Amino acid sequence: MKYELYYWPTIQGRGEFIRLALAEAGADYVDVARASGAKGVAILLRMLTAKDIATPPFAPPILKAGRLIISQTPNILLFLGAKHGLAPANEAGRLWTNQLQLTIADFADEVHDTHHPIASGLYYEDQKAEALRRCEDFRTNRVPKFLGYFERVLGLAGRGDRYLTGARPTYADLSLFQVVDGLNFAFPRVMAGVARRYRRVLALHDRVAERPRIKAYLASERRIPFNQDGMFRYYPELDA
Amino acid sequence: MKYELYYWPTIQGRGEFIRLALAEAGADYVDVARASGAKGVAILLRMLTAKDIATPPFAPPILKAGRLIISQTPNILLFLGAKHGLAPANEAGRLWTNQLQLTIADFADEVHDTHHPIASGLYYEDQKAEALRRCEDFRTNRVPKFLGYFERVLGLAGRGDRYLTGARPTYADLSLFQVVDGLNFAFPRVMAGVARRYRRVLALHDRVAERPRIKAYLASERRIPFNQDGMFRYYPELDA
Repeated sequence: MKYELYYWPTIQGRGEFIRLALAEAGADYVDVARASGAKGVAILLRMLTAKDIATPPFAPPILKAGRLIISQTPNILLFLGAKHGLAPANEAGRLWTNQLQLTIADFADEVHDTHHPIASGLYYEDQKAEALRRCEDFRTNRVPKFLGYFERVLGLAGRGDRYLTGARPTYADLSLFQVVDGLNFAFPRVMAGVARRYRRVLALHDRVAERPRIKAYLASERRIPFNQDGMFRYYPELDA
Repeated sequence: MKYELYYWPTIQGRGEFIRLALAEAGADYVDVARASGAKGVAILLRMLTAKDIATPPFAPPILKAGRLIISQTPNILLFLGAKHGLAPANEAGRLWTNQLQLTIADFADEVHDTHHPIASGLYYEDQKAEALRRCEDFRTNRVPKFLGYFERVLGLAGRGDRYLTGARPTYADLSLFQVVDGLNFAFPRVMAGVARRYRRVLALHDRVAERPRIKAYLASERRIPFNQDGMFRYYPELDA
């Protein structure tokens, strides 16, 4: 079965968590809006308003898997994790992976709100004063809280446990890679300053980047470069 | 087995989504911090720093179920839903319920950010100017987008389908009840203004409130009243 992924064609955004999982799984999929050229966005928007979907999406990303139409990033990953061995098979491990993913999703939401603290529908320039203020809290309190948490989780691991939940990578590891990769792009100064405190998290990032399928994906045209329209944006004044 | 719920003892907050599910399930549980008097908060904080938990929580609510320690609200509900028939048993229905819950969680996060757009650690009074601005977008764009979405989902239902996913209530129905109940408290003017556009959503709220176990719960001391410390707060200037 060939999956269909529906997501904005010009940004990594939340879709990137799905693209990474599909890449690591070696799954056959089409990134529909990207593959549809000028019509891509119209096709995506049609998925958001279609009246014949029994499980209508609130927002992208959306995954079509045969007759299933699934949305909400952690929900799609829960599905893919079970299908492709990207999460433990037992209940406790499945719940733990989902728990980690939901915390990563909260972190990603807060990254988004550093440049959009007032409204998603307004330009950054129209909420810059508020962004500067929110970002100060983000750098001072939230980055240490989230990265410190994942550093602690990685420190719990036993010998041979190289990933968040043990010896084998899950979709949560791929997602943590993505957030760290995005932070390195958006907050290079902040990240350089804290690198020594979160060695395990940064080592996990590098370990995921070296996995053969992820490495091939990152080097391919399938990986959209970071840019100023996505969740991770580089504004020097926010990386103070 | 008696569940243990760990959550802040004086607010509904995110813990309320779990309390409602436990009430509807008729589950045996102790609301640990509430039951522990003056020591309640210390006991809760200990759960957040304990070094002997293999699946450490990032934040409350936390559910202890035998040897499992689970956190992240939608993750706890995924677990309880499967155990207590508060979600369909088949994969498609389970994913759809989780998808709805994640959208409700996003909505609740945005409600929180109306009074805390800059930092959770600052008082409302210290971010009031930003709150007024964020709230304008919330009232104008976000409330119609979220409530319109759930109205549309309820409109898809067939004859006899009285809940979001069909004839039987799931934890997502309980959570949507909670958000509407909170909005009625925090934004009475806004909600009065839109009531006619979201009749199905408001009817669902009333239907859930009348379920015998929920009705008994809401009338009991277990239900903490809304107050100015929780996620839903009444500030007349935000309900403009």
